[in-house]
Amino acid sequence: MRYCSSCGASVSLQTPPGDDRPRFVCGDCATIHYQNPRIITGCIPEWEDSVLLCRRAIEPRHGLWTLPAGFMENGETTAEGAVRETLEEANARVEVLGPFAVFDIPRINQVYLLFRARLLDTDFSPGAESLEVQLFREAEIPWSELAFPVIERVLPLYYEDLRLGAFAWHTGVIRQRRLPDNTNGADASKS
Amino acid sequence: MRYCSSCGASVSLQTPPGDDRPRFVCGDCATIHYQNPRIITGCIPEWEDSVLLCRRAIEPRHGLWTLPAGFMENGETTAEGAVRETLEEANARVEVLGPFAVFDIPRINQVYLLFRARLLDTDFSPGAESLEVQLFREAEIPWSELAFPVIERVLPLYYEDLRLGAFAWHTGVIRQRRLPDNTNGADASKS
Repeated sequence: MRYCSSCGASVSLQTPPGDDRPRFVCGDCATIHYQNPRIITGCIPEWEDSVLLCRRAIEPRHGLWTLPAGFMENGETTAEGAVRETLEEANARVEVLGPFAVFDIPRINQVYLLFRARLLDTDFSPGAESLEVQLFREAEIPWSELAFPVIERVLPLYYEDLRLGAFAWHTGVIRQRRLPDNTNGADASKS
Repeated sequence: MRYCSSCGASVSLQTPPGDDRPRFVCGDCATIHYQNPRIITGCIPEWEDSVLLCRRAIEPRHGLWTLPAGFMENGETTAEGAVRETLEEANARVEVLGPFAVFDIPRINQVYLLFRARLLDTDFSPGAESLEVQLFREAEIPWSELAFPVIERVLPLYYEDLRLGAFAWHTGVIRQRRLPDNTNGADASKS
């Protein structure tokens, strides 16, 4: 951030009176531009004994598999965002069953909110941001080709709960950085 | 938003190619400025059979009671933010016990994340944004003077779970607008 979005003057990093951390403050109109974490909302779409994954057509992690999820938009609820992302990425219609996980990724200022959801039909196909969309049984999950550590953490929790026959809420923090893209995710570090 | 925070040129609302909603787009450098919901993180601080509430010294809802909570900051986890806000607003130290509620407020692009927490001592006092900080037993809660609908929804859920002896995760959506400030919150609408 270099310029004030309100008046166009230059901003600088300074700690406002009464605050305890530097913010971008306009040198002209004195507007304080706060920056806050963003929510990634998505779901685990279930169909019989399978879940739906999307193979990413975009960076980061082009070519790797993930759950349908994306940035929550203004004006929607977290569950509405999860339904919308699933429609956009997989052309799939889901009914949200309940919340499943909240994972913090403080390194990149993101909070993941993932729901369990039921696919309403199997008429799905890749959206603009997906190369492929596919149902996987547990034994078929491409563990070494998952796009993000949060997905590597959440899917095992899902299968544990499935075996227990009771779904809990799960929380966690992803601390570690993934290895560079050229490892193709096969040696992903976990936190 | 009127100016691009990257280059200082004027922005206009337009729907970028491949997008489905208007964004602020720079007419010069073409940067798309996304705007997303923000997270309010906070807690229900427990001490024996009481919870700690703060009477607000700031608008909105000056003079009304709320749980310690505030905007999550970059670089922290949701639980760290809840601990920080409790320290800032009530000079109180807490240990987070677990997640309790996720409430969407799409009208104002906020998502509340509230934890249960245990006060570590009773050496608390009003922070800069509080007029008073006080422990309340259930029968003493100032129901007609609570600052926000989300607090009116969450505290009864907390007491229900307390009676059941088991704490669940709760989710909800706050749809309705509060009555104007001059009602002093006594006739708050609930969704």
